[in-house]
Parts: sequence; structure tokens; C-alpha cells
Amino acid sequence: MHSIKKILLKPVFYDGWKNIEIKGWISSNRGNKKIRFLEINDGSTIKNLQVVFKGDEFNFDILDQLKPGAAIVLQGSLKATPQAPQPIEMLASKLIEYKNVDEDFLIQGQEIKLETLREIPHLRAKTNVLKAVMLIRSTLAQEIHKYFAFRDFHYVTTPIITSNDGEGAGETFEVSDGNKKDPFFGKGNKSSLGVTGQLHGESFANIFKNIYTFGPTFRAERSNTKRHLAEFWMIEPEMAFFDLKQTIHFSENLLKVVIRNVINKRLDEMQFLDNLSNGTLLKKLHHFLDSQLQIIDYKDAILELQKVKNIFEAQNIEFGLDLASEHEKYLTDVLYKSPVAIINFPKDFKAFYMYQNDDLRTVAAFDLLVPGIGELIGGSQRETDYQKILNRVHELKIDQEDLQWYLDLRRFGHMKSSGFGIGFERLVMFVTGMDNIRESIPFPRTNGNIRM
Amino acid sequence: MHSIKKILLKPVFYDGWKNIEIKGWISSNRGNKKIRFLEINDGSTIKNLQVVFKGDEFNFDILDQLKPGAAIVLQGSLKATPQAPQPIEMLASKLIEYKNVDEDFLIQGQEIKLETLREIPHLRAKTNVLKAVMLIRSTLAQEIHKYFAFRDFHYVTTPIITSNDGEGAGETFEVSDGNKKDPFFGKGNKSSLGVTGQLHGESFANIFKNIYTFGPTFRAERSNTKRHLAEFWMIEPEMAFFDLKQTIHFSENLLKVVIRNVINKRLDEMQFLDNLSNGTLLKKLHHFLDSQLQIIDYKDAILELQKVKNIFEAQNIEFGLDLASEHEKYLTDVLYKSPVAIINFPKDFKAFYMYQNDDLRTVAAFDLLVPGIGELIGGSQRETDYQKILNRVHELKIDQEDLQWYLDLRRFGHMKSSGFGIGFERLVMFVTGMDNIRESIPFPRTNGNIRM
Repeated sequence: MHSIKKILLKPVFYDGWKNIEIKGWISSNRGNKKIRFLEINDGSTIKNLQVVFKGDEFNFDILDQLKPGAAIVLQGSLKATPQAPQPIEMLASKLIEYKNVDEDFLIQGQEIKLETLREIPHLRAKTNVLKAVMLIRSTLAQEIHKYFAFRDFHYVTTPIITSNDGEGAGETFEVSDGNKKDPFFGKGNKSSLGVTGQLHGESFANIFKNIYTFGPTFRAERSNTKRHLAEFWMIEPEMAFFDLKQTIHFSENLLKVVIRNVINKRLDEMQFLDNLSNGTLLKKLHHFLDSQLQIIDYKDAILELQKVKNIFEAQNIEFGLDLASEHEKYLTDVLYKSPVAIINFPKDFKAFYMYQNDDLRTVAAFDLLVPGIGELIGGSQRETDYQKILNRVHELKIDQEDLQWYLDLRRFGHMKSSGFGIGFERLVMFVTGMDNIRESIPFPRTNGNIRM
Repeated sequence: MHSIKKILLKPVFYDGWKNIEIKGWISSNRGNKKIRFLEINDGSTIKNLQVVFKGDEFNFDILDQLKPGAAIVLQGSLKATPQAPQPIEMLASKLIEYKNVDEDFLIQGQEIKLETLREIPHLRAKTNVLKAVMLIRSTLAQEIHKYFAFRDFHYVTTPIITSNDGEGAGETFEVSDGNKKDPFFGKGNKSSLGVTGQLHGESFANIFKNIYTFGPTFRAERSNTKRHLAEFWMIEPEMAFFDLKQTIHFSENLLKVVIRNVINKRLDEMQFLDNLSNGTLLKKLHHFLDSQLQIIDYKDAILELQKVKNIFEAQNIEFGLDLASEHEKYLTDVLYKSPVAIINFPKDFKAFYMYQNDDLRTVAAFDLLVPGIGELIGGSQRETDYQKILNRVHELKIDQEDLQWYLDLRRFGHMKSSGFGIGFERLVMFVTGMDNIRESIPFPRTNGNIRM
């Protein structure tokens, strides 16, 4: 059995092959009672293989009734068609099996709005747009695992149900089996869905040096924006002995390698989405791949923004400003025209575990901003001095007891480490050009929405 | 920077290299005030690199105090030592940086019981046993992704929080943000942690043909056994157009390929664990790799068991018996001495979605049993006839409304599909020889236990 992707990639190679079996679903069906043209898709690519049925051996009454979405297994011979729009087509010799769709199957014309398709996440990837996005998502995930495996990074699955709530910020989901008198995880124990794998990941980086997580994380935020999900996947690498700048360069390399590989492996899907975006998508991605990352200190970014402060809505630009997207956009899209890593943020913006710089007011954090998108990655070097991190925990009134195991890492050979988090669905949005994060995950969960 | 794994793999290649930088943690420290031997581990392998410090340039008072677990960065030259137990060692030229461990660091002698180590999951992989298991787990996961990616399987992340509870069986965890009046996911909507990704996966297999999930799943079972976790990872492939036997052979190939690759890539760790098991582990695995899978019909298995029924505790052996582990053991370890797939189980044992055989009493399910372990995989061909699956839903009094989207797949081009589930931690147990599933996952969650 040969996938349609492989056949379309090498039409000349497949020219003349006979008795090839194709299994897939019908995308379109046109013709008359003497000849029919079925476009078949098998999910290996968004492109279809055209199959021509002609001759007395076929029952054209049956063929006529097959609707888009119907499953079909058939045999035929392949013929390269270099002059035609499709590079190769199949002449059917045998209809082996089929299963039609019922009358009320929604996705036939494929001209349904993305909003409507969210109501049917189990079917929407039958449309070209969602099929392309999901193929790219899958390849992106596999390339990320490949990237880390090739570099001997240890893959650690951090817990989903946890008694730690990460940064102490953000709303968490609680987990229970409904028994309040005798809670499943024991009396007095918190049990919520993890908002990050970082803390657990750090403990493994302190043993395996270079590790990454790739798993689901959760926020119970009641905000319905285009960029927020209640359930999303995160990639969180953590490297012992890495400082901030090594980590920034590593994150840039990771993004560039996996995005380049995905463009190459999913060229048909990328070109399809590029057309949808009127040619802006691939231009944006190639610009990202070709440009050099700029690293700028937060306090220098403030100076740059002050120079042009009249162009912003928020003009009160001074040290301590939490950069808004208009400021970030200026830095990436106007000033540097490249991805920008802003480093050394005021400590008040950032989490307790970040490395405290000598100036006593900033931490060794970075945000990686990308033209046209904004923040794609956030990370930091970690504080490794037990007393310093403990002081910060107390300043921020975080419950020390819950975190004692994490703080203890600093007493047990945790010399230096750095890491970052990539929101996987944000990355899928960046690579596919989708405007709404709900299109970037198979079954989106948001406030009020839990289909299936 | 060179990993210790790479240096130990090619001692002759590295012989004579100077100014090599090593970053890792101290495993042992012996010697006197004139010469010290530090064993360094960097997490790339369970093996250590021996580093020799001698000469006036070193402060032996400091070196003397470095305890197991301390982080260290140093430079030195490498010397192959073909006669010595270790194939290569390093002569230190410079101690660049170090961070000692505090007095109360538990893991120093490394002679702590596995049960005790479960109290400190963030540190226990510093012991050889858990380090070996976690290295193998990570490589196993990466090999599984590689196996599927190489075969163009689509990786689908199915939802963790779901309004479906899978097979309708088993206890589920509920998820909420604590607001009862206005539930996060909407009034009247169930929201629990998924017990399987299969149903969602099937919808993607109906579009992308060959798919797999690899993500966390949950059971709120209050049973504390060696083989149960409340949170565990599952791999669930689903192949459209596959029948039961193709699926069984595919599952056998998957296991054999990834286990063979893991043994090759993690040979040091496998040999270490093999020694722990007195040579039984690798023998068991090689027997699995070398033996031919037997496929036996459930009703024929019953006949075989009847022939020797006196050897069993449960001797009432007839069609309808739910095989106990003593029966399974007889089939794999005594009768066939090979892995065995039992197929066509009585439908009452099995889930509603399984393909109903023509005999009206069995379904096209399989359990893959492995010598010395028991069930490693369960799967089935899926029922694709809408009316038949609906009848089964009614017979079993399952709530149709929740599952309507899934049932509808059968009306929308779902011609044939099959799939199976592998409990990832069970597979880790099989490959590492661990006796308790709590050793097979970084942070185990069980009834009453939620550390960190």
C-alpha cells in the first residue's frame, strides 16, 4: 500500500505501476454515467489523487452516489500526466469496497466557517484548512521530539495531577474523585492540574543535565481570547550548567531547525496555507529563519521606546513598565525587523525562581518576541542560591512548605540551570498562520466549551 | 562539551584529548591529601568517568570535602586505560567550579530501599537503579515517537479534560475550578480526566488513516497494587482499513522494534539492570524478540486449559471464563513459550465499540500476553455498523447522547478501523524488570499519594 503523498511526490517513479491499492476518502466526485473522476484523499497529504473510472466493469449508479467523505478501497494503474494540473492520475481497475456517508454529513462543500467547524472537532480536519493545520501540528511535534532525541536530551513526563501549583500565580483546576470525606489523594493534600512542568523538570535536569518536557498544562482562566486555552501543550527544556545567553541561543536554534524541517516535510500544506494568507505566511517564516536574533536588555529597550514614545498609546515609558504588545511590535517589526530576546526584566514582573542579578532589581529572564506574533517563548536562568530564593519566596508570601522539595534542589548540587517554555499551540499558530488558537489543537477546551 | 556516554563509548578515539571540559555530579570521592579519584556522572549514562586529581595546583582540602551529589565543572586530559576496569580516565588539569551538597542530602551511599526512594521522587534518579530506569523510559518514549514518525503515523493529542468517560467503565476524576454555581465548562457539562484517547483518536484515524496518541490517562481506582497508577501514559494507535490480524502483527512489530532499539541504545543501563535480576531480564527480552507470536482463539484457549485444568486454582474452565493470570501464564510460559495473542473474546467481557463477530457471542478483540508479565496490550477491530453499535450501547445502558458524536463516525465514512492501547509504564516495567509500577514513572500518583 502506497500513500498518496509518496505517489504525488514521485509521479515519474510511479508512472506505469499497476494494481496499486488506494484506501482513503472521497473529496469530490464528478462526471457522468460513462466516466467518473473521483478525487481521493488518504490523510497523508492535503493533496488528492484523481482516480478515473471508465468502462463496462463499473456500476456507474453506485459510483454516482458516492459522496464526499465516503470511504473507498480500490485498485488501479498509475499514469504520470506532466501536462495536467495533477502530476499523476490513476485509472481504476477495481472498486474493492466503499462506505458512503449519510445524508446529514456536514462537510461536503467544505465552505464552512472556522467558527462553525469548532462545533464538530471530530470531523473538521476533513476540510483542507484544518487538515493542513493538523498535519503540520503532528509533524511539528514529531520534529521537536526528534530535535531533542538527536541531542541526547532526556524526555521527562512531569505529573499532570500535582500538589504544586507552579508559580503560585494563575488559576488552577482542582481534581477529585467526588469523595469529599476521604479525598483520593489523602486528607489535606492539594490536587490540581499542573500549570507547568518546569519545577519537576528542574529536578531531572539536576540529574540528567539536559531534559525536556512535552505534555499538557492547564489554566482555569475565564478569559475567552484568541490566544488562550484552558488545556494546552507545553515544551519545557531545562539545561543544567547553561546560563541565560546559552539558553536564548539554544531556543533560537530549536525554533529555526524544527520550523525549517516542518516547512520541508509539509510543503504542500504550507503552500496551501500560504495561499490562504495571500503569500504572507511563508514570507514571515522565511524572514524569521533568515534573520539574526537580537538580544536587548530590558532597560535599553526602555531607552529605545522613550525615543519614539509619541507613537504609543501608553506613553509613560520608564523602567518598570510592563511592555504592551504595541511596544513589543515596535521592537520586532520596526526597530530591529527581526526576532528579539528582551532580557533582565524587573524582578517584580517575574517568578520567584529566577536568577537575581547583581543590580538587585532585575532577574535573568528572557522573552523571545517574533515579528508579527509577539511572545513565543519565555524563560530564565534559575536562582541557585538557597538563601536568595528563600528570601524571594518569603517576599512574595508563597507557601514555603509546598515548595520545600524544590527549594532543596539548591542544597543538593544544583549549581546552575536555565530553561524556557514554548506554548505548543502558539507555535502551531505561528507556523500555520491561524488567527485563533482554537484551530491549532484537535479538541480545544476553553471557558464554557468542552465538546466531546 | 562531550558527554560521558560518548567518551566511554569510544575510549580509543578520545585517548590523548586535552582540555576536555566535563560537567556533572560526583558519584564517589576517594583518595588522600595528595591524590583523589572522583567518579563523575553527567546523566548521559549510568556509567561514571573517573577523574584523577594530583599535583600542587589543587587544593586537596576542598577536594576532600566534595560529597556525592556535588556539582562539578572541570577540565582535564583523557587517557585510554585498556587494562583497567574503566576503559578511559581523565587526569584533571583545572577545577573550574563546584557546588557541594548540604549535610542532610539523603542519597550518598545509594543503598536505600526503593520504597524509601519513592518519598523523594525528585532525587531518586540519582541512584543507579532509578537513573537506569529513567534513562530507559526516556529512550523508549523517543523510540516510540520515532517508530510512528518513520511510518508516517499522525500524532494526535487527544483531550485530557473531557466530557466523555471512555468506555463508561472505571472511576474517573472530576475537574473543576471550584465554582459550583457557574461551572468553568458550562452548566450540565461533565468534565473529567480522560481514561482513554481512543474514541477521539478514532475520529482522526477516519481522516488521517494511521494515527497514534501518546499522552496521560487517568483512573480514580482506589486500589493500591504494584500494577496500578492513578495517572499513567498510554500509547493508542488506530489504523483505518486495518482488520484484527493486521493490527496484532503491527503491535508485535512495534514492540519488537522499539525494544530492540532501546536495548542497543541503552546497553549499559540494560546490563546493569540485568545484573540486578541475576541475568533473567535480558534473557526474557531476547526470548520475546526471538519468538514468534502465537494467535489463538479464546474458545480454543479454553479447550487447551480444560486439558490441564487440575493444575489451576480456578478449575471451572468453560466458555465465558474471564482468564485469570494463572491461565494466561500457562499459555505463554508453559504451552507456547512465546507471546500469545488471544482473540475473539466473549462480548460480555469487552467494550461496546468492538466489532461483533458473526457468531453473535464474541467480538474481534485481542489481548497480547507476554511470558513472565501477562497482558501488555489490549485492542480490537471496531464495530463500524451504526445500528449494531447503537444496539450494543442500548444493551449496556450507556448514555447515548454523550457518545452520539462517536457513533456518528460510523455514518460518515468509517468503513473499518482497528487499534490498541499500550500502558506505557507497564512497558517500562517489562523492559526494565521493575516489579512495582511506581518505579517506572518519574512522579507516581496513587491512592493517597501525590508527592510534589
